Order: sequence, then C-alpha cells, then structure tokens
Amino acid sequence: MNINGVPYRTIWLKDNYTVQIIDQRSLPHKLVIEDLKTVEQAAAAIQEMHVRGAPLIGATAAYGMYLATLQHSELDFLKKAAHLLLQTRPTAVNLAYAIKKSMQVLEKTPNENRKTAALQIAEEVTEESVIQCKHIGEHGLDLIKAIFKQKNDTVHILTHCNAGWLACVDFGTATAPIYAAYDAGIPVHIWVDETRPRNQGARITAYELLQHGVPHTVITDNAGGHLMQHGMVDMVIVGSDRTSRTGDVANKIGTYLKALAAFDNHIPFYVALPSSTFDWTIREGIKEIPIEERDANEVKMIQGLHNNTITSVLLTPRHSPAANYAFDVTPSRLVTGLITERGVCDASEKGILELFPERDTSLNPSEGKNIPL
Amino acid sequence: MNINGVPYRTIWLKDNYTVQIIDQRSLPHKLVIEDLKTVEQAAAAIQEMHVRGAPLIGATAAYGMYLATLQHSELDFLKKAAHLLLQTRPTAVNLAYAIKKSMQVLEKTPNENRKTAALQIAEEVTEESVIQCKHIGEHGLDLIKAIFKQKNDTVHILTHCNAGWLACVDFGTATAPIYAAYDAGIPVHIWVDETRPRNQGARITAYELLQHGVPHTVITDNAGGHLMQHGMVDMVIVGSDRTSRTGDVANKIGTYLKALAAFDNHIPFYVALPSSTFDWTIREGIKEIPIEERDANEVKMIQGLHNNTITSVLLTPRHSPAANYAFDVTPSRLVTGLITERGVCDASEKGILELFPERDTSLNPSEGKNIPL
Repeated sequence: MNINGVPYRTIWLKDNYTVQIIDQRSLPHKLVIEDLKTVEQAAAAIQEMHVRGAPLIGATAAYGMYLATLQHSELDFLKKAAHLLLQTRPTAVNLAYAIKKSMQVLEKTPNENRKTAALQIAEEVTEESVIQCKHIGEHGLDLIKAIFKQKNDTVHILTHCNAGWLACVDFGTATAPIYAAYDAGIPVHIWVDETRPRNQGARITAYELLQHGVPHTVITDNAGGHLMQHGMVDMVIVGSDRTSRTGDVANKIGTYLKALAAFDNHIPFYVALPSSTFDWTIREGIKEIPIEERDANEVKMIQGLHNNTITSVLLTPRHSPAANYAFDVTPSRLVTGLITERGVCDASEKGILELFPERDTSLNPSEGKNIPL
Repeated sequence: MNINGVPYRTIWLKDNYTVQIIDQRSLPHKLVIEDLKTVEQAAAAIQEMHVRGAPLIGATAAYGMYLATLQHSELDFLKKAAHLLLQTRPTAVNLAYAIKKSMQVLEKTPNENRKTAALQIAEEVTEESVIQCKHIGEHGLDLIKAIFKQKNDTVHILTHCNAGWLACVDFGTATAPIYAAYDAGIPVHIWVDETRPRNQGARITAYELLQHGVPHTVITDNAGGHLMQHGMVDMVIVGSDRTSRTGDVANKIGTYLKALAAFDNHIPFYVALPSSTFDWTIREGIKEIPIEERDANEVKMIQGLHNNTITSVLLTPRHSPAANYAFDVTPSRLVTGLITERGVCDASEKGILELFPERDTSLNPSEGKNIPL
C-alpha cells in the first residue's frame, strides 16, 4: 500500500545482499527503513519487534534464512540459523512454518544452490501472504459493496487493533476489504479503536489509512458502543490471532466488547483471517485458547511523541499494580461471518468445513489434528 | 478517606479566611493542596478543573460564595460572584443548585450576618454530599456482604472512571460501598478501568484506593470482558452523570460496553448515584440525553510522568482526526439495580418511584418536571 504516495510492502529485497524492512517501532512518528544483511539482524528485528504480525514475522524469518545462506552455505550453520530465528517469538505459528519450509528444501539442495533456493522460498512465503490477503480483500469487498448498495452513502466500518498491511506483507487481513473498497471508489470511513495498551490502532492502523488516503477517525476503545447505538457504524471488521474450528475468535483484548455491542445493535461483525489462523484442534475457544499475560508496564506506561522525541510516560500511581491480558475470545454466536481467502462463511464448524472440507473429521481420520496442507 | 494515613476531605476550611482543596490536576503523581482566598480563585479552581465531580463542584461553589462575602458583603457584588461561579461549568447541576441555595439565603440576610450565613450554607452543601455518599455506602455494603457470604472469598468488583471520594467530598458514590466493605473487614479487590481518554480510573481511582489501602489492579478499558468471561469479576459498580426516570444511565464513555459484558456473563451491574443525578424529565436515555463531544486532542494526546515532570505525548499520527464522545447511555435493561441514598431499587420507573414516591406523576400534577425537593 502507499506511504507518501509511494507503493510499499513491509519487506523486500533491496539488492542480492540486503533485505529491507520498515522498523515499525518508530511509527507513526517516523518512517525508518532498515537494512538486514545477516540472519542475526533478521532475528533481532523479529525479537525486538521492528516487525510484528504473524504473516510478516513468517516472511522475515524466510528472508532471514536467505541471509544465512549468504553468510555460510553449510547445513550446520543453517540449522543454527533456523534455531536462532525460531526462538525469537516462540508462539508465532507462521514463524515455525516459514523456517520449516525453508529448511526442508535446503536440506535437499546442494551447497552451491542454497542461496537461490532460500531466496525462492522467501519469495514464495511472501507472495503466499500477499495473495491470501488479496483474496480476503476481494471477498470482503462484496460485503461492503452490498451495504453501500443498500445505503447509497458512506460505509462506516469500525476496526480494532492492527490487522493491516503492516502486520502482513501487503493489503492486511481486516484492512484488505477496506483498501479494496477504497480503491474501487466506494466511499468508506473507518473508526479506528486506539487499542490500549499498545495502541496498535492509534499508531499503526491510523498511519496506514492516513498514508493510503482512507478517511478515518481515531476513537478510544470505550467509544464504539456509543457510535453503534447511534447508527454511526455499518459494520465491524477485525482480524484474529487464533480461531477455533467452531468459529470462536481469539483477537486483541477488547474485541469481545465490540462484538457484544455490534450484536446488541444488529450490526454485522466480521472477522478476516487467512486459513493458517484456524486452530483445528480447538472446539471451545474461551476454555481452550490460552491468553498471554504481558508486562504490566505496558498498561502503566505509554509511549508517544514529545518535543519530536519518542518518550514514555507513567499513567498510574507508581505503586498501583496493573494487569495486562493481551487477547480475549469472542464466542462464535456473536460473529456474523469469517472472511477467508476461500470466501466468506458462517462462524460455525459447519460453515467453516464447507470452505475447508479437507478438515472435516468425519471424512478424515486424523481427527482435530493440525495436519499440514 | 485517607491519604498517607491521614483522613482527608476534598475541600475544607483551613481558617476563617482560607478554603483548602486538593489540586487534582497533579494526581496521582503529586499531592498539591491549594489555598482559595477569593471567589475568583474558587471560580478558576472549578473552571480549570483543579476540582472535578459534580458534588465537589457544588461544594466548591458554595465555599466560593462564602469567600465572596469576605471580600464584599453587598448584594451587587455577591450577585456578580454568583454569576462568575455559575459560568465556570455551565452544565453541572450541583453547581447551579449550590449557588442558588446560597443566594436565596443571602438575599434575605442582613449585610453583617452574610459571612456566617454563607459559611453555614457551604457547610450544609458539603455535609449533604457526605451524608448521601455515606448512605449509598451503607446500602451498597449490603450487596457486597451478600456476595461475600455466598462466596466466602475475596469479592472482585470492577469500576469504570472515578465516582470516588475525590469527585465528591468524602466516600464517593461508586466507591462508597467499596470503602464501607473494606472498612468492615470484607476482603475486596477492585479492577480499575483506566478510562480513556482522560484516565480518571488510572489516575484518580487507583490513587484513592492505593492511599486508602484497598487492594486493586489497573486494567485497560478493553480487559473487563475477558475478566468477566473467566469468573474474575463478582460485581460491577459505576457512578452516573445523569439517569432517566426509567433507569437509563448516562455515565463515562465505555460504561455501556461493561454493562453488556456483565449481562452476557450474568454478573450484577450496579449504578451508585445520589438522587440529584436523576433527570425526572427524561424517559428514553439513548434518545434524549445529549452526549458532550470534547476536544479531539484528549484522544490524540495523553499526559503522564516523565523524568518527574508531568508531560503530554502525542499518540496518533499528527494528521489523523480523532473523535471524543465523553459519555454513553446504558439502557436500564442491562442494569441490575440503582444504589441511592434511600436504598437500592430496580432500574425501572416503578422501582425508582418506590423509593421516590414524590416523583410519581400519577400522584403529582407537575408531570415529569424537575421540581425542587
């Protein structure tokens, strides 16, 4: 998508020896492009969150393996490189997927061809994310078009957190339908939840939309219910970090509250996700999906711009404890539909299996396993 | 309540010529006690929000009238003083009430007795708030006791914004039952919503509870739903800025989302309010209660402590618009009960009129008017 009118992705090859990324820690205040020349630099970029978002983490790891082949092409070194990358963010599914995919090929490839093979894998992983997001955008566009057709006026969409192109390689998941609608000339306006504690909405989603020219308004996480009560929201689209095979959706903390408000006000609530986000082993999201508890200082402190310097300030009494649950689970009964790369389906096991019949345990004996496709 | 182990109110007479207040703008980082010696200083303290919260604003205005009588006892001057105070925060009901009450007496009082009369009114207004809050605390305590009796373990209470003693003179409204329970030895733990954009929870409620020794944890406004889904909240108590005669509750933005989550998880949701908060003219809260829209910079910027200095930082892209709705309305169907100074009632016209029969329009011809009591 565009930054200052120039089309960007979140990761790209600058020349045969250099991968470039956007160092997202300075957003929205500064656009910092960073060179990665070694696997160690790629690992640090993931670990220290210069890049974030599962698809982008996967792509960065795949490019990290390519950078490793430039350093040494011996298998011993590449195994160490894979291990280094793998331990940066141990819970990200896409990270393990990308590294495994790369290593499987590299193990079978002669030394002298490993650079070419690793680069090809990195490009494949990257393109796969781009194509999935593009398809999610096309399927979601149909939903926005239908609302616009009925309303014949600006379609107001609320989103929470950042499931945008900066979390992926391009387009994003929740934002893909928004960009598709905007680019198709449908008037859209986005309510951007700031998404405390880390403010991915106020920082990243607002930045993305501003740069691409999409009309938007930042609101506090408290405001969405009021807007919905007063007819100011036509639909909600959020992303997901993990979705059960029955359609329960783990996403950034606070998503559940917006789903309740949407349901209470008869507003469609959609979740956009690539199929890699399904956890086929889980049936009851609230009981089974573990919720990460992060550092309380993310609640007690906040970072922003002061005198042109990124500065952290204390919000609470110094000795008040704080708790920081990172995600919540929205039960499928509150979800209008799931927007996947294969199409839109009901948030139910039946609906999901219609799009993903290979996961039907009545047809497939390896019941509920995360079988690789 | 206590600060550093010393009992405080939010406003008091230091000597016959000086009123003292806590300048709340520096909380929670610094405790600043401010002297008020003139009506102009009292007006500035209200206007610039050294004091906030409807009951405290009323008390400060009444003391402001007393300070005016120390400057000049002529009625012309006192009328100007009343006007000056009245225009500081034009929408606060308690402000007009306190000033009117003072002027009605002063107009009938000879010059030489006006100082004494004005002081007496100020003390009356102040005591009235203290007594109302004390009674709210006693009635709410019964509810907490009942939960404790059933559970026989720590009672976890979630609150939003600050309806605490720092918004009143002592005890607070939503916090009154909490302090009563704590002082009675019932183990309580409070989940404090930070309450963006102005963070009255993270700043003021957390400070109050910390100073009085009540166990508490600050959370983001996004977190309450997750806590309720996992059995970590036993009840919710919030305050109210205006409540319809049918029990619809206007309160700080985001209250509605917590009410939805409480309802969805079968958790009691109580609203604590002095009867002065009822707007007897309003039947449909969502349609009829106007919602103040405040400066977008309250969303885009936030204030906190950096290097021991209170500092404001920018959170969003500089050119992203923001919207700042200050309140929302929770429909009565989501409210378990109202805790008033006369007792606890259903959030319905029938329930409310059982406690306030003088407002029954079938018995009283001045239907739906805000008749003075």
